[in-house]
Amino acid sequence: MNPALEKSVSRTTTLPHRVHNFGAGPSTLPLPVLKRIQEEMLDFAGLGASVIEVSHRSSEFMRMAGETREHLRRLMNVPASHSILFAHGGGHMQFSAVPLNLLGLKPSRKALYVDTGNFALRAIEDAGRQGYIRTIASGRNSDYDRIPELNPQDLDPDACYLHITTNNTAMGTRWNTWPDSGNIPLVGDMTSDILSRHVDVNRFGLIYASAQKNVGIAGAAVVIVRKDLLGHALPDTPNLLNYQQLDEDNSLTNTVPTFTIYVMKLLLEWLEEQGGLEAMEAANERKAKLLYDVLDRSAYYRAYVQPAHRSTMNVTFTLPDNTRLERFLAEAHRNGLYALKGHSFRGGVRASIYNAMTEAGVRALADFMTEFERRNG
Amino acid sequence: MNPALEKSVSRTTTLPHRVHNFGAGPSTLPLPVLKRIQEEMLDFAGLGASVIEVSHRSSEFMRMAGETREHLRRLMNVPASHSILFAHGGGHMQFSAVPLNLLGLKPSRKALYVDTGNFALRAIEDAGRQGYIRTIASGRNSDYDRIPELNPQDLDPDACYLHITTNNTAMGTRWNTWPDSGNIPLVGDMTSDILSRHVDVNRFGLIYASAQKNVGIAGAAVVIVRKDLLGHALPDTPNLLNYQQLDEDNSLTNTVPTFTIYVMKLLLEWLEEQGGLEAMEAANERKAKLLYDVLDRSAYYRAYVQPAHRSTMNVTFTLPDNTRLERFLAEAHRNGLYALKGHSFRGGVRASIYNAMTEAGVRALADFMTEFERRNG
Repeated sequence: MNPALEKSVSRTTTLPHRVHNFGAGPSTLPLPVLKRIQEEMLDFAGLGASVIEVSHRSSEFMRMAGETREHLRRLMNVPASHSILFAHGGGHMQFSAVPLNLLGLKPSRKALYVDTGNFALRAIEDAGRQGYIRTIASGRNSDYDRIPELNPQDLDPDACYLHITTNNTAMGTRWNTWPDSGNIPLVGDMTSDILSRHVDVNRFGLIYASAQKNVGIAGAAVVIVRKDLLGHALPDTPNLLNYQQLDEDNSLTNTVPTFTIYVMKLLLEWLEEQGGLEAMEAANERKAKLLYDVLDRSAYYRAYVQPAHRSTMNVTFTLPDNTRLERFLAEAHRNGLYALKGHSFRGGVRASIYNAMTEAGVRALADFMTEFERRNG
Repeated sequence: MNPALEKSVSRTTTLPHRVHNFGAGPSTLPLPVLKRIQEEMLDFAGLGASVIEVSHRSSEFMRMAGETREHLRRLMNVPASHSILFAHGGGHMQFSAVPLNLLGLKPSRKALYVDTGNFALRAIEDAGRQGYIRTIASGRNSDYDRIPELNPQDLDPDACYLHITTNNTAMGTRWNTWPDSGNIPLVGDMTSDILSRHVDVNRFGLIYASAQKNVGIAGAAVVIVRKDLLGHALPDTPNLLNYQQLDEDNSLTNTVPTFTIYVMKLLLEWLEEQGGLEAMEAANERKAKLLYDVLDRSAYYRAYVQPAHRSTMNVTFTLPDNTRLERFLAEAHRNGLYALKGHSFRGGVRASIYNAMTEAGVRALADFMTEFERRNG
């Protein structure tokens, strides 16, 4: 190990021992948030009970859940036309809930989807159980190295909605300009880029995101939905998947994952302390650039994604051959650079650098990449 | 406040300040479990990351999830004929998932339910969206003071299953003998009494329970299902509500609520240390008797439930009038006896005394009741 790396590793092994966690989700959290959870574990709001022991209907919890929603509304500038819901089951459950709630908007029961990789494909598959789903563009032919272009003629005005995956966790692509869907409500799965950049929520009829990347930990999803789209759920929609029901009940239709909401609130507070979305977006651009600069300078590493379509959240690349790829992952792990293995759909290396990933962590990876190339080039 | 109570309160206010938490769920946890969570919050399994930061597909997490299942199988003596699943959304989500998975067993799409109070009614309502639901017995006419008797002639052999709520959290009743449903699979919502007593799992086609009472914290449900009942889900069943899909994927179809599974494992280990279900059942009988003895000796308090149908988990009673009821709840709260207000469906007082409630806590409540009656009788 070179001295610079040894020093970096020895820094991370001071107490508490912390790796740089590049996992795609559940993913790294800010250390101050973890410490606060630890400190408060035995007593929430002075109640003499832990946050994981108190009722979701206690005034203390309901106040906190309301504050969490307000933090999110403020941070994302969510207009009054849209409701914010907490839903069970992560992003994947919304692959079913979205069609169940929106395919009743028109008698056609039709919706349009864009295939930008494996999570988009799973969304398409699940929606297919509920209605008539048409994939109007796919990145498959270019091995998902870009977001495919839409043909305006494919925007069937009879469709209930158009679904996109705004950031593709496994692929490393993201939408950098939103498609113009006209009167067709645009639905965005923002699971892996919510809160990472400014988004004009008005452009979307519905936004959803599982919590375990930029909004906290596994166990819930956030749904932001234009209120006029509510009330059209298909008749056999399970009660807890019915957005109108959740909206009427302030998302407390049943016991919510209370700890997940609590961590969400701490994380949103931390995000506000960092300067909100504007500061976060700038930091994310800086962090991503550190890695893309290494990739673009190098003939050794190959970035999977075309520059105009690159994600700032998930940086994907590969090495000249599998032997060196395996060595890279093993050495990185020994250097405290954790969970860099790419998704099986894509292979190679994936560095997930969500909001909570520090610039120091990204620098450590960039340095390691440069050093590894020097020794194994 | 009388001296005995003051002493009891001062004991509970030593660090860490802990109330006796009689909440119905999310509910009290064993202090050693909370402390362990606190200790391990910054580092799970020596990974240099928190348990809430690591992937559900990491070998460390998958091993833990497997161990959790095995703990549960051992504690409940679950036979090889039954699979154990972790599902999203708590018990309420299973109100929809059960009919979606089982109403395809027969062309009739019929199921039988027993109305034993508000959660049974919600299960009936949700199931009604998926098929033909018949309520074959109801406790309504006796104000749910007992489990109603079933008429064997109502057991329509064409039904896909018979659903009961084995313990009624809001009512304070429980089934003390299981109905003989013949060839009709028996389905039990065990949300508030799982792991509180010995259950012959072979009697059930399917058991489900949300986690936040005796199995940990909010955010998941446990489903125990006879394998031959899998594979008959209705075609539009959302993927994450499909038990066969969960079974094939070892419940890792998508990101599971990792922290909830982790707490579940700690709680099951604690339960084994306490001597397993036999010891727990005996302790629960002892704890419940402390309260029922006060109720039966008193003409002041009135137990809601007939002796043969009483729950050991939720003890419900009322006072002579609302003024004294309100005073009781307020004084109890000041004495560190937390969350005793009855469910709105029932009113009065409800003491939820799940596995993790200590005998000292129950004694403190019994003493308070006696003392309160003396002063306000």
